[in-house]
Amino acid sequence: MTRPINLFEYESLAPQHLSPMALDYYASGAWDEVTLRHNRTAFERLKLRPRMLVDVSQRDLITEILGQFFPLPILIAPMAFQCLAHPEGELATAKAAAELGAVMVLSTMSTKSLEEVARLRQETNPWFQLYVHRDRSLTQALVERAEANGFTALCLTVDAPVLGRRERDQRNQFTLPPEMELANLTTMANLEIPQTEGESGLFTYFTQQLDPGLTWRDVEWLQSLTKLPVVVKGILRGDDALRAVEHGVKAIIVSNHGGRQLDGAIATIDALPEVVAAVGDAAEVLIDGGIRRGTDVFKALALGAKGVLVGRPVLWGLAVDGEAGVRHVLQLLRDELDVAMALSGCANLKDIDASFVKRL
Amino acid sequence: MTRPINLFEYESLAPQHLSPMALDYYASGAWDEVTLRHNRTAFERLKLRPRMLVDVSQRDLITEILGQFFPLPILIAPMAFQCLAHPEGELATAKAAAELGAVMVLSTMSTKSLEEVARLRQETNPWFQLYVHRDRSLTQALVERAEANGFTALCLTVDAPVLGRRERDQRNQFTLPPEMELANLTTMANLEIPQTEGESGLFTYFTQQLDPGLTWRDVEWLQSLTKLPVVVKGILRGDDALRAVEHGVKAIIVSNHGGRQLDGAIATIDALPEVVAAVGDAAEVLIDGGIRRGTDVFKALALGAKGVLVGRPVLWGLAVDGEAGVRHVLQLLRDELDVAMALSGCANLKDIDASFVKRL
Amino acid sequence: MTRPINLFEYESLAPQHLSPMALDYYASGAWDEVTLRHNRTAFERLKLRPRMLVDVSQRDLITEILGQFFPLPILIAPMAFQCLAHPEGELATAKAAAELGAVMVLSTMSTKSLEEVARLRQETNPWFQLYVHRDRSLTQALVERAEANGFTALCLTVDAPVLGRRERDQRNQFTLPPEMELANLTTMANLEIPQTEGESGLFTYFTQQLDPGLTWRDVEWLQSLTKLPVVVKGILRGDDALRAVEHGVKAIIVSNHGGRQLDGAIATIDALPEVVAAVGDAAEVLIDGGIRRGTDVFKALALGAKGVLVGRPVLWGLAVDGEAGVRHVLQLLRDELDVAMALSGCANLKDIDASFVKRL
Amino acid sequence: MTRPINLFEYESLAPQHLSPMALDYYASGAWDEVTLRHNRTAFERLKLRPRMLVDVSQRDLITEILGQFFPLPILIAPMAFQCLAHPEGELATAKAAAELGAVMVLSTMSTKSLEEVARLRQETNPWFQLYVHRDRSLTQALVERAEANGFTALCLTVDAPVLGRRERDQRNQFTLPPEMELANLTTMANLEIPQTEGESGLFTYFTQQLDPGLTWRDVEWLQSLTKLPVVVKGILRGDDALRAVEHGVKAIIVSNHGGRQLDGAIATIDALPEVVAAVGDAAEVLIDGGIRRGTDVFKALALGAKGVLVGRPVLWGLAVDGEAGVRHVLQLLRDELDVAMALSGCANLKDIDASFVKRL
Repeated sequence: MTRPINLFEYESLAPQHLSPMALDYYASGAWDEVTLRHNRTAFERLKLRPRMLVDVSQRDLITEILGQFFPLPILIAPMAFQCLAHPEGELATAKAAAELGAVMVLSTMSTKSLEEVARLRQETNPWFQLYVHRDRSLTQALVERAEANGFTALCLTVDAPVLGRRERDQRNQFTLPPEMELANLTTMANLEIPQTEGESGLFTYFTQQLDPGLTWRDVEWLQSLTKLPVVVKGILRGDDALRAVEHGVKAIIVSNHGGRQLDGAIATIDALPEVVAAVGDAAEVLIDGGIRRGTDVFKALALGAKGVLVGRPVLWGLAVDGEAGVRHVLQLLRDELDVAMALSGCANLKDIDASFVKRL
Repeated sequence: MTRPINLFEYESLAPQHLSPMALDYYASGAWDEVTLRHNRTAFERLKLRPRMLVDVSQRDLITEILGQFFPLPILIAPMAFQCLAHPEGELATAKAAAELGAVMVLSTMSTKSLEEVARLRQETNPWFQLYVHRDRSLTQALVERAEANGFTALCLTVDAPVLGRRERDQRNQFTLPPEMELANLTTMANLEIPQTEGESGLFTYFTQQLDPGLTWRDVEWLQSLTKLPVVVKGILRGDDALRAVEHGVKAIIVSNHGGRQLDGAIATIDALPEVVAAVGDAAEVLIDGGIRRGTDVFKALALGAKGVLVGRPVLWGLAVDGEAGVRHVLQLLRDELDVAMALSGCANLKDIDASFVKRL
Repeated sequence: MTRPINLFEYESLAPQHLSPMALDYYASGAWDEVTLRHNRTAFERLKLRPRMLVDVSQRDLITEILGQFFPLPILIAPMAFQCLAHPEGELATAKAAAELGAVMVLSTMSTKSLEEVARLRQETNPWFQLYVHRDRSLTQALVERAEANGFTALCLTVDAPVLGRRERDQRNQFTLPPEMELANLTTMANLEIPQTEGESGLFTYFTQQLDPGLTWRDVEWLQSLTKLPVVVKGILRGDDALRAVEHGVKAIIVSNHGGRQLDGAIATIDALPEVVAAVGDAAEVLIDGGIRRGTDVFKALALGAKGVLVGRPVLWGLAVDGEAGVRHVLQLLRDELDVAMALSGCANLKDIDASFVKRL
Repeated sequence: MTRPINLFEYESLAPQHLSPMALDYYASGAWDEVTLRHNRTAFERLKLRPRMLVDVSQRDLITEILGQFFPLPILIAPMAFQCLAHPEGELATAKAAAELGAVMVLSTMSTKSLEEVARLRQETNPWFQLYVHRDRSLTQALVERAEANGFTALCLTVDAPVLGRRERDQRNQFTLPPEMELANLTTMANLEIPQTEGESGLFTYFTQQLDPGLTWRDVEWLQSLTKLPVVVKGILRGDDALRAVEHGVKAIIVSNHGGRQLDGAIATIDALPEVVAAVGDAAEVLIDGGIRRGTDVFKALALGAKGVLVGRPVLWGLAVDGEAGVRHVLQLLRDELDVAMALSGCANLKDIDASFVKRL
């Protein structure tokens, strides 16, 4: 095997390392997967307008997010069940992220517990992604554990009051293999992904356990539990972004859950400008969805994002080569961004403004 | 056979249960089938802008149409010759519709008579679709029979002064098998679909029997015959919608007859906004054409429709599994709408407004 | 063989009746054939907005062009070398046209002479298409012969100062078979299509014989030779249309020569509105290019054309079944227009206005 | 083999005459090759609006660029390593260019030295393309040699502070075969393209040798070294074009390096209008990228370019038939432009204005 030279080559290799059920779980979008595809094509419609004859001999990708500095504007999106991709699961991902100074967002639904991840004692601390369970004491306990274990932000997923219908999972009756568990939850509440006839077990879990009644007041409640900043993930409208600001949110992630929740939802890169315009300087805006090339990162930054979250490509790297694969995926993307900046005449992230993209 | 999990899977299964002539009759659009395809692609161009952190723990799909309440905003479009799909034909469809509280619109050209359908004594009464014959006494008698048998609205099809050219039917010399009949018409007037050399028998029937001279005055005449509300089906322009209102119409169905009449006609979802804008509160607007997913229903409601009519998918369900198949098709669509509402932050139909869609 | 039911079926059958060289000559467009394809796709982008509940029991396709009345708004475009398609060539086409009351435009480059065509003594007289030769006396003689033989208009082709590069003809070294001749020209001037090494003979003929120096003054000169109205064919810009009017032209044909001259030229249906707007009532506007369905005719009329010219489909009909084939092609198109009018709520051509089309 | 009749046929033949590594080097664009493709499709979206009845019996393609007159508005773009295509390499290209009176731009990275090219003593002198090395004395020496050897302009490439990532080259570990050398550089500085593990040697060369710190001040420095005009190649924005003018540049080449540098960059024909508008009469604007047909040249001229540079097609001609192949490629393109002008009613280049194109 030649070493992959871009993220798409990792995508091509991943199926050799994944069970069909896991592959489907990672790859699939909701219903007809229109949004999944559109997340990509929307990037292609944006054309770059590079600037020439700027001194780019020293490039710097340093990024400030929520008052912390990172060497690159790339984060790892929260993704469940990473042991499906590799035995080390979230631990491998966390190590690779920390080596590059990238924030990893650990999922509530991880197959390694937040304590195990924290025990790695990395320099770059991860964020903790939160699904709010009907049992609020469970949520409160998770928040306390995250804070106690050095996580630096809470990332509240708001686009999943119910689970999106991923029909491949439904056909596969997706569930976790017996040797894996909801590492953050089994010990506390004996929760697990059920086996359900003709249905995705994860869909059933969400219906039974998670709270579809969450509102903006709960964001305030959540913030009241912790000193960690609450980041809201899953916003696609300017008015919702403004509401987030009004409820004290300091960072927003423009996301459609990788096309896995509401199929037909607007591509994230198309939603980004209205969110950025709505919040102005009152909050930081991040984005995920379809980031596969350094130029995608560049386009997102040009339209006002402070950083991007990468999801599936990290899983491909994890499946293909564990920690080293994740590290390589991040390096490839970072290096592509670096080249894209050089070729656009941007020596720093702050040089990248909206004049660099045009929708054609 | 695994149970279908969406309407497209019913479409895939239907050919095993239908004669080639029936399959062609159901599937075909007029001429080059441009409008048939465009009805679908026009939905895909509309992107959704979901709202987050709304309490959607209790969703309610209750719909008010013409002063009546229904548990879902989905009706069954009038379709001829349902015994081609299943021996129980329109009776199976009517029973499934009533079980879910959905209005079925029974076609003038049904293969079970309106009396047989009425004899089922369902809670949710059907509407009766009307083609106006050259012999007006025939039409008058049909209206009287519909009213006497408890139908609750008359749905006048106005887009078929002549029949659209469906070339598959023309090649097949489409006609009814000898064991089927125009159940509403044979007893009254001995009418039947002829066998015609090199021509669709239905095309010939329309040319000979139906009135291409119908005007808005006839709508008033029709209304004068009955206390039932007259619903006009087949409007694609704002000015026509306004004319409908001026002639006392209380509900309009935006329709291009499933792409079966004027090929090249505008997609219904693209015509909907101008119709809604033209009539304001003076009439209720419904829509059919290309509805295959709950998100399509959601988009139509967002653009001002009070409800949608579903056609071909009901026939696929009927062909595959009779009454149970129709019921399942309706359930799938309803449940998809329910999920789409949850994921969009809409607990009730009235929460769904134009801000939820954007044409990109 | 089943009888074709639309023009595309004639297209499918034609190759069985044509030599490869003739097939290529008829089918090809210039260079990459972009305009050839775009003539069709531009029609598809225009959506129809039909009007309902208009009395269409009596439809009337009567058309007035240059003061003459015709039963349909469809003419036969000038096309060279029709004996390549059928031994009777232009005579078969002329007879079929006259039977339906359609104007045929006879090409200067016909394989039957204008006198032979005139000898048919049809009720609907043809027009004569003119290429202006460098030898102006030749042109003058052609004009005199056309007038003397009862042709009712001169159609001056203005988009061919040189011949467009049709690469299939170039590869085929296209020329006429020895048994065919330029029937209008051989007797006068011994002209014939040469055989040229590595080149289309027709291209060489144009370069040697036709006048690339033609200007608007020559239109006036041409008009001075005859009482027949001069129709200018090949206009694609409003300013050129205005120039035509200023030089006394009474009818303009919007044409890109079926995509055979300047590849990349605008589709005719996209150029039509600006030409119509430029000339107002000062001249009549006709159009050719990509007309394959009655709805295409309808769209052209809606955008202001008085009539359309049909080219290749006539040749397909001629190849497949001679005079009967041409007649059937015209009938099919006329009947499709008739149905399209009925379904749009237009009983007469004058009912068809710009409100019936929308570009989406 | 039949002689090719257009540039695409040369493209089809070229692979038979090239090593896979050379073929990939010539064909490839950066990353996903989006810009490579978009350079072509952007031309197709521009529709032509030809003018009729203009006397085009005498056409003239004479072009003035930087005060010099040329018989055609077509130049040969700078391209490295032409001995990969043919043993005579840049010498064959230079001879063919001169025979037609076309300017050849010789690359810094040529496999024949600028002195060898100059020794041909052609009437039409070439330009010299300049990459600025970190070692500025090297650059200064190149400038002096170019001026001393009769080159008439310096073409400074500004879009390559680092090399674009061409993944085919990376996979091939692209380098020069041992028998070829950087003819302008080996004698001076012993520079050569290295062999690099898992990497394109050219990429490594750029990283090591070329100066990513170049700014507009260096343009002034360069101009101070020579009386030759400095042409800046690689501009895609109006503001950069204005900056060029402010720094004394007299000619600008709108280019994205044939899609080989920043993938996702705007197509050159889409960037041209803003550059032309920005500079007005203060500088001349040329363009390259995707020119394959005479109509492409015509479109570029219509949007304000004074001339176009052609790249890959010249290499295809060189590979297929050496000097004769290059000459034929240029002839084909020139003759197509000549026909396009005739068919558009343009006898001279100055007749071609923006009214001839419309984006649809």
